Amino acid sequence: MSHDTHLSLWAADRLHNISELRFRVTKTLMSARSEFQHVAVVDTEGYGRMLFNDSVAMISTRDEFIYHEMIAHVPMFVHPAVRRALVIGGGDGGTVRELLRHRGVERVDLVEIDRLVVDACREHIPETAAALDDPRCRVIIDDGKRFVAEAPDGAYELVIVDSTDPAGPSVPLFGAEFYDDVHRVLGPDGIAIAQAESPSHEPATQRRMLGLMRDRFSRVQLYNYANLIYPGGLWSFSYACKRDLCPVGDFDEARVAASALRFRYYSPAIHRAAFVHPQYQVDALAGLLSPWKSTRG
Amino acid sequence: MSHDTHLSLWAADRLHNISELRFRVTKTLMSARSEFQHVAVVDTEGYGRMLFNDSVAMISTRDEFIYHEMIAHVPMFVHPAVRRALVIGGGDGGTVRELLRHRGVERVDLVEIDRLVVDACREHIPETAAALDDPRCRVIIDDGKRFVAEAPDGAYELVIVDSTDPAGPSVPLFGAEFYDDVHRVLGPDGIAIAQAESPSHEPATQRRMLGLMRDRFSRVQLYNYANLIYPGGLWSFSYACKRDLCPVGDFDEARVAASALRFRYYSPAIHRAAFVHPQYQVDALAGLLSPWKSTRG
Repeated sequence: MSHDTHLSLWAADRLHNISELRFRVTKTLMSARSEFQHVAVVDTEGYGRMLFNDSVAMISTRDEFIYHEMIAHVPMFVHPAVRRALVIGGGDGGTVRELLRHRGVERVDLVEIDRLVVDACREHIPETAAALDDPRCRVIIDDGKRFVAEAPDGAYELVIVDSTDPAGPSVPLFGAEFYDDVHRVLGPDGIAIAQAESPSHEPATQRRMLGLMRDRFSRVQLYNYANLIYPGGLWSFSYACKRDLCPVGDFDEARVAASALRFRYYSPAIHRAAFVHPQYQVDALAGLLSPWKSTRG
Repeated sequence: MSHDTHLSLWAADRLHNISELRFRVTKTLMSARSEFQHVAVVDTEGYGRMLFNDSVAMISTRDEFIYHEMIAHVPMFVHPAVRRALVIGGGDGGTVRELLRHRGVERVDLVEIDRLVVDACREHIPETAAALDDPRCRVIIDDGKRFVAEAPDGAYELVIVDSTDPAGPSVPLFGAEFYDDVHRVLGPDGIAIAQAESPSHEPATQRRMLGLMRDRFSRVQLYNYANLIYPGGLWSFSYACKRDLCPVGDFDEARVAASALRFRYYSPAIHRAAFVHPQYQVDALAGLLSPWKSTRG
């Protein structure tokens, strides 16, 4: 690794101009502008290799397992049998990789709007992007909103919205029309998961997202995780399902052991604990979340 | 508030020279060097007022409730009846404030080595420091290690080590002799809680701390929380008790409702979920934590 020792280089992810999380860069592997955003892949001193879109940290090879295990395995172990999944965004391939670890999955469609993200990750971040070359994965470079609008009814058991923040190309993925189509393309037991921002920095976004889902789905929940590269400690994923499939009450942890999969963040206990919110988040989301089913006995 | 609009001022908390969390500063209220460390209090754009010791973020008025509720209420609702508590460090007063919300508490001794921290907080951060002037609180400016060495046997039901990172004045608070004395000054049901660093950035420190406690206490656990101003998402407190008082199995959540206290982070569900660790932390701490008692039925 060639260290740029003559310069102190930092990649800076700024939050609302109030704080900034900076990562010490040892080497810039690529840095280019696409039609949609600026994309960069860098090596860092402490976080391995990192992808930045418009200067916002997307993933690091040190901690991407946290985000990708939590976005994928929570719904995979709640839905009775996912065979076909749709991932919108997530051009790094990490979510696809985790989905494909489940033997029942026959096909994952990955719809990424920005070819540059896929190309950059394929070249520089094989840890996640190798999954995109799995024969069960179909990579589609397209607008996710348009793709779901044209997809057939009931085509998927699971839709994962693995988007960037609601700015730039991701804005339509936080809108009402998009969720009409997500609901429509799901089968009867279908689950929709979406990247749902920070409970402390974006409570209004969380409320808006959950409101959209509540108008369309039988059950809406939110679950939290904590990675190393996003600001503000906790971060969330939303959970919505067409029929009333409770991610805690209907969760059968015996399926996790039976899968023989090994995880670095996820576990049955973490699955349940992720749906427990700090009191400030409980208060902020009052009235938006579905009541719990009692735990299966 | 007088904004320093001519300058872009950032207070930077650097972690191991690999990353840096920076906060936009609008005003510096004090900045001075004591015998022990550099102390600064600043107003920020997004985090309210903040205290920095040696350029490391200690508290912000935006999120200090998270740290202080979790360090205080977890043991307070497990121990049958805390009357006398000792806080070592914590010169900002936030931990004392939360302890004194419990009606049974008759006295809290706060032992802070650095008078400058107490003075700075009394002048600039009354949100936390006002508690130091409560008649039930005794503020002692002294070396915490010496103080416990000289304290009588069984003098406290609860000892909280509310320390900075294991560098500078806090180094002795991460040592074996100190924990001999913490054990000795606790009564038979006594609980010791300590600031236990980051599971992802300081796993070796966590293992060392838990090992020290395991050699001395009946039960050792670790619990996590996530605030906004510490790097790396999750952060931990260690839990150790003289007799086998399980913070989950012996936790009676009816006491929380009976207290009529209102919280912004803590809740009975958060109390239990905090003891659930990501798999990487479970693996890192293998063999160091006590087995769970089954939940009280």
